[in-house]
Amino acid sequence: MKHSTTDAREFFASCRTQIDAELDRLIPKESESPQRVHAAIRWSVFAGGKRFRPALLLAVGQTFGAPTDHLLRTACALEMIHTYSLIHDDLPSMDDDDLRRGRATCHIQFDEATAILAGDALLTLAFLTIAQDEQLSAQVRVELVDTIASHAGTPGGMVAGQARDLAAEDRDVTQEELQEIHLEKTGALIRVAAHSGAIIAGATEEEINLVMQYALALGMIFQITDDFLDVTGTAEQLGKTPGKDARARKASYPAILGLEGTRAEIERYYRDAHLALQGIKRPTELLGSIADFIRHREA
Amino acid sequence: MKHSTTDAREFFASCRTQIDAELDRLIPKESESPQRVHAAIRWSVFAGGKRFRPALLLAVGQTFGAPTDHLLRTACALEMIHTYSLIHDDLPSMDDDDLRRGRATCHIQFDEATAILAGDALLTLAFLTIAQDEQLSAQVRVELVDTIASHAGTPGGMVAGQARDLAAEDRDVTQEELQEIHLEKTGALIRVAAHSGAIIAGATEEEINLVMQYALALGMIFQITDDFLDVTGTAEQLGKTPGKDARARKASYPAILGLEGTRAEIERYYRDAHLALQGIKRPTELLGSIADFIRHREA
Repeated sequence: MKHSTTDAREFFASCRTQIDAELDRLIPKESESPQRVHAAIRWSVFAGGKRFRPALLLAVGQTFGAPTDHLLRTACALEMIHTYSLIHDDLPSMDDDDLRRGRATCHIQFDEATAILAGDALLTLAFLTIAQDEQLSAQVRVELVDTIASHAGTPGGMVAGQARDLAAEDRDVTQEELQEIHLEKTGALIRVAAHSGAIIAGATEEEINLVMQYALALGMIFQITDDFLDVTGTAEQLGKTPGKDARARKASYPAILGLEGTRAEIERYYRDAHLALQGIKRPTELLGSIADFIRHREA
Repeated sequence: MKHSTTDAREFFASCRTQIDAELDRLIPKESESPQRVHAAIRWSVFAGGKRFRPALLLAVGQTFGAPTDHLLRTACALEMIHTYSLIHDDLPSMDDDDLRRGRATCHIQFDEATAILAGDALLTLAFLTIAQDEQLSAQVRVELVDTIASHAGTPGGMVAGQARDLAAEDRDVTQEELQEIHLEKTGALIRVAAHSGAIIAGATEEEINLVMQYALALGMIFQITDDFLDVTGTAEQLGKTPGKDARARKASYPAILGLEGTRAEIERYYRDAHLALQGIKRPTELLGSIADFIRHREA
C-alpha cells in the first residue's frame, strides 16, 4: 500500500511538469492584449494546483494505451475548465473566498470584472484547445467537446452542482442531497477526465463504463476527504482557512455523518473504486495507486 | 432601397420564429434542475432579442447554398454566446446595467450568482450544441468550434473587446482605439456568424474572405449606429436609458467625431459592405438588403 501511494505521487509529480509546460504554451502570454485578463488567467492557472484532473486523464488514457502527446492538450483543457470554475466560485456573490492555495484569489489580486472575464476566456480557450488538437481525428475531437461540455454545464454537470451547492447554504441537507451536490460539483469533472482519457485511447464501451464507475468513486473519495480535511486540517496544510465550511453552514459529510461516519463512507467508495478496476483487463496498478493516494492525502 | 430594406425585415421576422423555436428545444426547461439557473437563462434568451447574429448566419449560409436545417443549430449556439456575454457584461462589476430591452437584467431579476452561472452554462451549452449537431460532419463541427471559440475569447475576440472597453472607461480614446474595441467586442461575433454560415455551406476560401469583409463592415455599421442611437434615440426606442454612454464616459463615435462625422463613418462602411458583395458570384441581394436594414434601423 505504501509503495503504491508512492507510485501515484511520482506519477502526479511527473504529470505536473508536463501539464504546466503545455498550459504555458497554450495560454496567451501576459504581454498579449488584453494584458490584465491574461495576467489574471496566469495568476489562477499557475497557483500551485495539483493538476489532479489532467493527471487522471493521462493515467486513464495511458492505461488504455494512448500515447501521452495525444492526451496532453485535452488534459490541459480540463484544467482550464477547473480553473475557470474556481475563479467564478470564489467571487463575492458566490463563495466569497479571498484565499486559495495560500494566496489571493483572482478577484482580490485583480478585480471582479477581470476575474469574470478571465473565467469566461478560460472556458472558451478550453474548447478551442480541443478543437485545434490536430493529433486527434475530427470524430474524437467532437466526441470530447460533446462529453466535456455535457459534464461542465447544466443539467447534471459542474455548473449545476455549484448552483445546487449555493442553494443548499444555510439550510439542512440530507446525505442524499449532499451526494448529488458532490457528484455534480466536483464529481462531474473528475468523471469526464477519466472518460476523456478512455475516448482518446479508443477504449471499448464496457471499459468506459468500468472506468467511469472507478472515477465516480474516486471523485467521492476526493470530495469527502476534502470535507474531512476542512475539519481536521491546519491552515498551512489546506492553503485556506480551515473550518470555513462549518462556519458558512456549507453542507459537508462530517456535519451530517460525524468524523467516524465520514471515514466509513470514504472506505466504502474506496472499495467501489478497486472493485471497478478488477473488471478492467488492463494493467490498472496506477489507477489503483491513485485511489490510495487520494484516500491518504493530507491537503 | 426601401424595397430592399423590407426584404431584410421579412427575412429577420421569419428567422426569428425559427430560431426562437429551436432555442426553446435546445435550452433546458425551467422545470429541470437547477431550476433557478434555467429560469435565468430563459429570462435572458427570450427577452425580445432581434436575433441579428443567427439571422446573419442563416443569410450567409443560404447565399452559399446550405439548407436551413444545417444552419439552425449553429445559429442558436451563436445567440447563446451573445446572450451569455450580455448577462455577464450587465453585472455590477462590469457595465452595471439594470435594464435591457425594456426589462430587468438577469442579475436584477434573479441575483448575481445566478447570473454568473447562467452565463457560464450558456457558453458551455453553445459548444455542446455544435458538437451534437449530427447533420454536420465531424470535420465541419470541429472547424465551427475552432472558429467560434477563436472569435469569442481572447486574444482578439469578444472577451478581449469587453476587457478593452472596460479599460477605456473614464479616459479619452482615439478613433483608432474605439474601432479596435468595436471590432472585437461586437464585431468578432458578427464576423464569425458570417464565417460559420460560409463554413457550413462549404464556401470557397475566396468567398469566405469576401463575406468576412462584408461582415466586418456590417459589424461596424451595426455598432456605430448603436452609438448614434444612444445619442439621438428615445428610451422607448432603445429599451434602455439613452445617453448612458456619454454619462458613463464610455468611448463612442459621436463623442469623438460628432453626429455628422459619425454619419459619414457609417456611410463609409456601408460602401465597403456593398463593395465586398460585388465580388461574390452568388445572389447577394439578401446580404445587401441586410446592410441597408442595419444602416436604417431605429433601435
